Amino acid sequence: MDSLNLPGLAEIEAAARRLAGRAVVTPLLESPALNARLGGRILLKPETLQRTGSFKFRGAYNRLSQLDEARRSAGVVAYSSGNHAQGVAAAAQLLGLPATIVMPSDAPRIKVANTQGYGAEVVSYERGTEDRKAIAEAIAAERGATIVPPYDDPDIIAGQGTCGLEICQQAEALGLHLDAILVCCGGGGLTAGTGTAARALSPETEVYTVEPAGWDDTARSLAAGQRLANEAPPTSFCDALLAKEPGVLTFDINRRVAAGGFAVSDDEVAEAIRYAFTTLKLVVEPGGAVSLAALLAGRFDARDRCVAITLSGGNIDPELMARLLAEA
Amino acid sequence: MDSLNLPGLAEIEAAARRLAGRAVVTPLLESPALNARLGGRILLKPETLQRTGSFKFRGAYNRLSQLDEARRSAGVVAYSSGNHAQGVAAAAQLLGLPATIVMPSDAPRIKVANTQGYGAEVVSYERGTEDRKAIAEAIAAERGATIVPPYDDPDIIAGQGTCGLEICQQAEALGLHLDAILVCCGGGGLTAGTGTAARALSPETEVYTVEPAGWDDTARSLAAGQRLANEAPPTSFCDALLAKEPGVLTFDINRRVAAGGFAVSDDEVAEAIRYAFTTLKLVVEPGGAVSLAALLAGRFDARDRCVAITLSGGNIDPELMARLLAEA
Repeated sequence: MDSLNLPGLAEIEAAARRLAGRAVVTPLLESPALNARLGGRILLKPETLQRTGSFKFRGAYNRLSQLDEARRSAGVVAYSSGNHAQGVAAAAQLLGLPATIVMPSDAPRIKVANTQGYGAEVVSYERGTEDRKAIAEAIAAERGATIVPPYDDPDIIAGQGTCGLEICQQAEALGLHLDAILVCCGGGGLTAGTGTAARALSPETEVYTVEPAGWDDTARSLAAGQRLANEAPPTSFCDALLAKEPGVLTFDINRRVAAGGFAVSDDEVAEAIRYAFTTLKLVVEPGGAVSLAALLAGRFDARDRCVAITLSGGNIDPELMARLLAEA
Repeated sequence: MDSLNLPGLAEIEAAARRLAGRAVVTPLLESPALNARLGGRILLKPETLQRTGSFKFRGAYNRLSQLDEARRSAGVVAYSSGNHAQGVAAAAQLLGLPATIVMPSDAPRIKVANTQGYGAEVVSYERGTEDRKAIAEAIAAERGATIVPPYDDPDIIAGQGTCGLEICQQAEALGLHLDAILVCCGGGGLTAGTGTAARALSPETEVYTVEPAGWDDTARSLAAGQRLANEAPPTSFCDALLAKEPGVLTFDINRRVAAGGFAVSDDEVAEAIRYAFTTLKLVVEPGGAVSLAALLAGRFDARDRCVAITLSGGNIDPELMARLLAEA
């Protein structure tokens, strides 16, 4: 870590060693059809294929595997709309720790079911009226359990950074220079980790965030140079990305490593999910499709450029996918 | 080729050189959830991610790229329910040849639309009453065009063999010994190519075919030691695998390289498609899901074994996927 206690390449490489044999080294995919449509070379990082169906397992396992022996038996507590929930639950199961996850009552059913499937206890709360963090902290205090924050934590960020580490290594193995990486962004953990890896390994690569429209706190904060919250944000079906404001630690990193950010509408995301289904043959959830949406909607011009994008999660309810496909 | 004019490893390696930079080197994926469910190590070869959404591009491009200069301008003609159609159309477009494809009137709409999207002319016929081969031959004779058969051709088989070549190379790179490979089987081209590669590179690996129930002509032919046709086969939604009998050339190869075959019901295939969607996050069409179905339905016991399976195609109509998801 550097003088500001921010994780660096060394912490990301250490996380990669911890994750070896536990996390999936997801491939870097290329679609001739997508390249032809956009006139560039697009490298897809499908964290949909990661254990638990999103990148969140990386950070969770990196954090949990470093828990003090004395704290392990009391277990862990997390709050999450679903992907961090599954990541923590699966990591806890692998490590033999009890896990309790505080999830909103409107979380996608597949995410709740999977979290329970990994052996975690799920505590439900109302997204609009209750404070999930307070609920989690009360449970943790009562049990002596350890809170596993979704993004504002150096070990979580270093774990997510292994995604960026792989992107850089895999692009290099293909002999490609990355002009840009577009990262699906909620609280900013994946961006911070990926951006840190990219700045170290491929310093000329520009890193951009992509967020749902009205939830583009990170993009606006990057432009303003300070953390800004979303004021009266609209509803969005990108449940994985609905953070009210950037994390303290993640923003401190992202203002150094990210060049800027984009926002996409739910309609643009729906179109990207359909494109992923029909042409890429990949199942992507709304929050995992925003980077692809930014390319398809022309928010970022990939022509004659080599651009990596994260498909950060694939935990979409079958009912939602069926509806999106029917609307086409 | 050996004395019987059967393609061997040298022809498959030559095909791989022709396909370099044209076909996608699809990854060999592993799912912790699937491994845990089956108690073995399952390596997924997702040809769903191949150019045109199925392995068929491999054979088609290998065949078309070797056409005599004199025959190129007259173009090519193929008959196919859709995946060979798209493979030939895309290969012809890349090589600048005109292509005409004879397709059944009940072919999945996505396959017809994509074939036209690659610039091919589509001629429709009735699956029950018309002879697609005769129609294609009449068109070819009239135009001086070259027929590109779907499987019974050494160059097609060698092209499909690059899929098996990659499976063997990728498994070896992972330090894994393959106990078995399960191949989705229609006319037998992918099995013949993959089996030839496996016999050369990993001779102890057993290769099995998987076919739709009632359309298991290859399994029964392998057991009988001679080509047997399907008598009064039932309807099946595995449109890509509805061959009436094994090819002459493909069976001559498969009786040497395949250990046997399995059959799966449409219900088992539907369950495999849903599993691929929900857990693997991959879009797989019915014919591409039969190998996965054989594992999930317990037709082949993968416990404590390392088994590669082909997910040979992903061109499923969105309406069908929506219906399958709704039925769950």
